[in-house]
Amino acid sequence: MNHPGQWIEIVLFIIAIFLIWISFTNFGLVKRFLIGRPMRTAELHSQHTKLLWFIALPILAADLYSSVAYGPEAGITELAHLGVTAKWYIIPITISTIVLLAILILSYIMGILAYPSGGGAYAIAKDNFKARWVSLIASSSLLVDYILTVAVSVSAAIEAVSSAYPVVAPYESSLAIACVFLLLVVNLRGVAESAKVFAWPTIFFMVCMLIIIMTGMLDGVRHGFVQQATPPFGTIPKGISTLLVLKAFSSACSALTGIETISNAVPIFREPRQKNAIKTYVALGTITSITLLGFAYLLYVKGISPSPDNTMLSQLSGLYFGHGIMYQIIIWFTFIVLILAANSTFTGFSQLAAIVAADGYLPRVLTNRGDRLGYSNGIISLAACASILILAFHAHTNALIPLYAIGVFLSFTVAQIGLTKRWLRVKGRNWKVKLTINIVGAIITSIVAVIFAVTKFTGGAWIVLVVLPILIILSITIRRHYNFVAQDLHIDLDEVVPEAKEVTTIVLVSGVHRVVNNTLSFAKSLGVNPIAVYVGFDDESIHKMERKWEEWGYPCRLVVLRSKYRSVLEPLSRFINLVEEKRGKEGHIHLVIPQFIPKKGWHLLLHNQTALQLRIWFLRHKDVVITTVPYHLKK
Amino acid sequence: MNHPGQWIEIVLFIIAIFLIWISFTNFGLVKRFLIGRPMRTAELHSQHTKLLWFIALPILAADLYSSVAYGPEAGITELAHLGVTAKWYIIPITISTIVLLAILILSYIMGILAYPSGGGAYAIAKDNFKARWVSLIASSSLLVDYILTVAVSVSAAIEAVSSAYPVVAPYESSLAIACVFLLLVVNLRGVAESAKVFAWPTIFFMVCMLIIIMTGMLDGVRHGFVQQATPPFGTIPKGISTLLVLKAFSSACSALTGIETISNAVPIFREPRQKNAIKTYVALGTITSITLLGFAYLLYVKGISPSPDNTMLSQLSGLYFGHGIMYQIIIWFTFIVLILAANSTFTGFSQLAAIVAADGYLPRVLTNRGDRLGYSNGIISLAACASILILAFHAHTNALIPLYAIGVFLSFTVAQIGLTKRWLRVKGRNWKVKLTINIVGAIITSIVAVIFAVTKFTGGAWIVLVVLPILIILSITIRRHYNFVAQDLHIDLDEVVPEAKEVTTIVLVSGVHRVVNNTLSFAKSLGVNPIAVYVGFDDESIHKMERKWEEWGYPCRLVVLRSKYRSVLEPLSRFINLVEEKRGKEGHIHLVIPQFIPKKGWHLLLHNQTALQLRIWFLRHKDVVITTVPYHLKK
Repeated sequence: MNHPGQWIEIVLFIIAIFLIWISFTNFGLVKRFLIGRPMRTAELHSQHTKLLWFIALPILAADLYSSVAYGPEAGITELAHLGVTAKWYIIPITISTIVLLAILILSYIMGILAYPSGGGAYAIAKDNFKARWVSLIASSSLLVDYILTVAVSVSAAIEAVSSAYPVVAPYESSLAIACVFLLLVVNLRGVAESAKVFAWPTIFFMVCMLIIIMTGMLDGVRHGFVQQATPPFGTIPKGISTLLVLKAFSSACSALTGIETISNAVPIFREPRQKNAIKTYVALGTITSITLLGFAYLLYVKGISPSPDNTMLSQLSGLYFGHGIMYQIIIWFTFIVLILAANSTFTGFSQLAAIVAADGYLPRVLTNRGDRLGYSNGIISLAACASILILAFHAHTNALIPLYAIGVFLSFTVAQIGLTKRWLRVKGRNWKVKLTINIVGAIITSIVAVIFAVTKFTGGAWIVLVVLPILIILSITIRRHYNFVAQDLHIDLDEVVPEAKEVTTIVLVSGVHRVVNNTLSFAKSLGVNPIAVYVGFDDESIHKMERKWEEWGYPCRLVVLRSKYRSVLEPLSRFINLVEEKRGKEGHIHLVIPQFIPKKGWHLLLHNQTALQLRIWFLRHKDVVITTVPYHLKK
Repeated sequence: MNHPGQWIEIVLFIIAIFLIWISFTNFGLVKRFLIGRPMRTAELHSQHTKLLWFIALPILAADLYSSVAYGPEAGITELAHLGVTAKWYIIPITISTIVLLAILILSYIMGILAYPSGGGAYAIAKDNFKARWVSLIASSSLLVDYILTVAVSVSAAIEAVSSAYPVVAPYESSLAIACVFLLLVVNLRGVAESAKVFAWPTIFFMVCMLIIIMTGMLDGVRHGFVQQATPPFGTIPKGISTLLVLKAFSSACSALTGIETISNAVPIFREPRQKNAIKTYVALGTITSITLLGFAYLLYVKGISPSPDNTMLSQLSGLYFGHGIMYQIIIWFTFIVLILAANSTFTGFSQLAAIVAADGYLPRVLTNRGDRLGYSNGIISLAACASILILAFHAHTNALIPLYAIGVFLSFTVAQIGLTKRWLRVKGRNWKVKLTINIVGAIITSIVAVIFAVTKFTGGAWIVLVVLPILIILSITIRRHYNFVAQDLHIDLDEVVPEAKEVTTIVLVSGVHRVVNNTLSFAKSLGVNPIAVYVGFDDESIHKMERKWEEWGYPCRLVVLRSKYRSVLEPLSRFINLVEEKRGKEGHIHLVIPQFIPKKGWHLLLHNQTALQLRIWFLRHKDVVITTVPYHLKK
């Protein structure tokens, strides 16, 4: 306890304790404060003004464009241990990445042409494949990658800040979790994804990136493009292998995640929607390509090496602008844009999860709209999963990268094949051109997905390759369960009607006091003659109970059970079996349990929760109706 | 993910996941496997053969004697930054510690004479002070210190191992938590604290320590006692201050925790119990003093400096024996004895907590005996608190030391003053001598407690000084609550008897299907005429429900409520208020809720838990009797 940064952790800890405490005493208040007033269902459709394409561009760009902050760095990191002579590889690798980007954008434009109302990979697959597991590949891999997007973006955002302020470095995980929590709250409040205010940080970040690149070019013009620090170009370093180059390529491709955002968002564009969306795709692709190439070139020229404490973007900015105001601006806009990228993922994840859940492949709670009309359960699940990833990988972007992007490329491939099938079926204008583009796209993305899986397998990709099939099988099992339940619950309205049966009412008593009196009073009000059951742990307490019951005038029949193992459950369960045996299985057994309700929540900790334990066990294991009679303590 | 030690974390993680999974699917099985068969209450008194004092000695010694592994080191660490010239201070500091040890043992012998049936500080305080908060100081500070004992001992045990195997160093926290979990399981199984098998490791550890010290002495005889590495003696280093010396002294005093064990355990000694216990105290005191002094002397002579990766005990052993078999033996016996020290604390904590809880000052669940007759809830609480401490302080012994030992010395002081009061009241043989000893003891321990609080305040002692008063106030509040409950629940047997009142039965329906049929059937079996309530979120579903209800032949009155905010709770609550208004507060409102019970536990996740949410809210906020009618799914 001697690092100044410890205070960050202490402050976070105090905030956490405070939140837990308040939630415990008054959950409703905290919820209202954090989330805001509940909204009516009718308010759902009163949003959305349609956007001009050059305003939609920065809003939808955050996810893809922010990746420039970690993509090239991830690629170079793979080659770092080969030394200086390997650095020039970043140029051809970045060019391949840009070519891939162009192919993907072209294929996605085909998607927009086919599904003008916005079709994600899942919708395309559902529309074009009869086998349901194909669309589940698309949805599951996208969901997994959305989780990774949040983890990677938030980690990269924190790494940007800790490059500028090394004092926070030991607390990266805690800070990243705090950011996820913030995003959780913001998304539960329900910020519209298309809010125009989100355009500005991305525009500023783009401008920052272009300024860096222009400064670098001017620097090149003034001092010569090949400088003192520039590593040799074209020499083949010792120990290089195709596998290594492919590995670097696949890491660099993490810069391509987030392309699907625009095609999902076609409906928010002003008419002509398709044309505007395509314009946006072309513009975003151009800007991203320029940035990636310029950035990679500068990293190469300046001979910058990856460092665990200082991102390459931060090193480069420091080199050109020192650590003054321009450097601070770049760092903080990087931070903001990466957080925005994570933010937009929350909407994407929860909407996709809701669509899949509505089809019965995921738990139905994911389709519930929360107080603020967002799919709260999806939002919470995403935050939880991303937090686990951040903790498990200590918020290190480069450790998370190997898991990343496989999912995206898998879903790309499924979507391309789906579109190919569609063109063959539907045909239409220029269908042969479109078909060719999607076939090429499908081949390239599937090759890239295989390259990813092979090169990054041991680095962590195996986790994704294990999780995905499990997720798909789970989805199918869930659907099967829902189908079975629907069948099981269905009744024929003419044949089945509610009928009265015999009821045996058993009241659990723990002594003679006000709570027991209250409970027996209820049981007697039902008009049945209840049996009181007392479970004693030793002779003394049993004799005392029997005496007191008599003194009380024997309000109803009392059965006393003896428990050798200090458990109420076991003798009670045996007694119920006995009753069932005597009376036959037809009819209801009705167990009435008193429940003590103190005025303050924490007082619950001071009383044995036998009632709760009994309730859980009996509901799960026996066909017993359980009634809880509350007794509210006055203080 | 490239450190070989990562596998430790992965294995721990997989075990954890496995345990969670199995617990989820079959909790009973895991519990039986880990904890063993349940035991009858009657088996409680069939243990205990009385022990000879020289067998009791090692069994009861683990707690005190194991502290030599971290006490001297903690003292030297405080002085480390003053450089070589400060090292000789460890000698006078250790001598003061030993003097303090002698005084404490003498005072504790007075305790044994006064309370031959074994009296802890709490019992002594309760017997001699009318004010209940005085005994609560003793109990609370002991409980806090027991928690710290577990955290410190386990951390020190893991540090011993990671000194020998640096590869596990990054996983110290995880390993320490795993050890606490192991101790938790062992203690829930209920290992008798006085099992003779526990004597051996402590004996071996004592022998190891004595061998090290003898080797050091022989080395001194052969090569001269002042060696090349020996720092200067008696020079006063720059920057030394009284405060710093006192700080080092108070850290070194962490070696004195665990003295109370013998006085608590008087009943396990063979007759004459008091005499044997006193013999044990004297013998243990002697051995501990020799070890502390010898160890401190060797550390000084060899000029050993504290290192975060290598404990001083490990450095010293390495110096004398290399890293061969003897070194391994020392490391592993240190580990075992420190774990045994933590283990014995589990019994101490849970028994003390049970005694205090029986007096009504702590939650009553702490007095429940578990399946294996141990106080399981106390055992679990201790493990949980110790784990939190280990996580918060990253399993660093030296970070935990500043919090440590204040509690023990506070409870020492309370006990001494209590004994002083007793001698003044009871008198008896030699009472003036005893009185003098306890007065001196009280003065010394209170001075030491103040020194601890002042010198270690900023280092972490403030946490204890904040927690203690909170704990005491909480204890008093708890007792007040129990008193109030007892009063509130009491009824006069002649005046109050259970009486039948009017019942209004409301059945919540979500559609027309088998679950609803089942629930209505139960409601009708009660002989009342139930009202079915349906909550719809939109017009369409409401119309559909009304149509279906009619088709079903209108089995009972149907009330349809409309929810604007997609919540079932709010309209239902309004409806119940309405019913209460119409009918008057007298009588019961009976809410019957269907509950869907799937065959497999995890299927619960696939169904909305509206029933559960309603139940929790209504029980807490309204005087409504709630019945759950289970419907067991067939698959």
